[in-house]
Amino acid sequence: MPNEAPRAVLYLEDLHVGLRFECGAHALDPAQVKKFAREFDPQPFHMDEEAAKATFFGGLAASGWHIVCLAMRMIAEHVPIVGGLIGGGAEVSWPQATRPNDVLHVTSQIMEVTPSRSKPERGMALLRTEARNEKGELLLIFTAKCVVPRRPSIPSLGTGEG
Amino acid sequence: MPNEAPRAVLYLEDLHVGLRFECGAHALDPAQVKKFAREFDPQPFHMDEEAAKATFFGGLAASGWHIVCLAMRMIAEHVPIVGGLIGGGAEVSWPQATRPNDVLHVTSQIMEVTPSRSKPERGMALLRTEARNEKGELLLIFTAKCVVPRRPSIPSLGTGEG
Repeated sequence: MPNEAPRAVLYLEDLHVGLRFECGAHALDPAQVKKFAREFDPQPFHMDEEAAKATFFGGLAASGWHIVCLAMRMIAEHVPIVGGLIGGGAEVSWPQATRPNDVLHVTSQIMEVTPSRSKPERGMALLRTEARNEKGELLLIFTAKCVVPRRPSIPSLGTGEG
Repeated sequence: MPNEAPRAVLYLEDLHVGLRFECGAHALDPAQVKKFAREFDPQPFHMDEEAAKATFFGGLAASGWHIVCLAMRMIAEHVPIVGGLIGGGAEVSWPQATRPNDVLHVTSQIMEVTPSRSKPERGMALLRTEARNEKGELLLIFTAKCVVPRRPSIPSLGTGEG
């Protein structure tokens, strides 16, 4: 579900608490789950249906980091903060395992907007992203602090203050 | 630097605060940085040297999630918790950008060990992982809560308590 409309570019002044972004959907499949795991999280419960049965997950489960990375791509494509999404830190939790045929639906919401005290040209936005499957089950909560530029002020032509 | 020695398998009882794991090294290169970014974090400063010059980073930088994923692989290979590394949540921060030719050195340390109150067969360990480059600069701090099984008790043969 790509956004077809031209996208606004958002400065710190354009953000407000509660602003929501629909970030589309992504259908997982077992091949994607195993490919990611082989490269970044090579554990049996992410790579092999049979071996996964005897584990904590009771069956194949996607790496939690795979879900974070997919959500990252979706917010990078749908949250048009000027200069890009630049995070200094993040908190992640996985309320339940993601299964290899889940369809991820990702939404993101502004939770805080804070101008920098020391850097007048920028501020920080706290962005909370959720991924749910097609049944509405919450799979990922991902909260990131993002650096956001302020809108440059237009230089005044001088109003006699000197 | 793979661990060649056979690895112990660690239960909750085997962990203690301060236990450290050397998780080896990984040499990045621009091709890896761009490949990860195209798939999971498609922003100009992670994909194109020229375009990156005019951005916050002033040059090509790896996606922070790429560094997390590489560290994940390295801890999965070097922290032999029984049943695997199963995280319920994590906090991540990137004190500085990772550059495309950095060599990552990853270490991990147990920060807390907590038996579960409700589930006698397991507990939680807080694992703090750091990635530094070859100059010793800190690139990633990654703290994860992991589910860790307790060592199964051997059934008693009966000592006359009944």
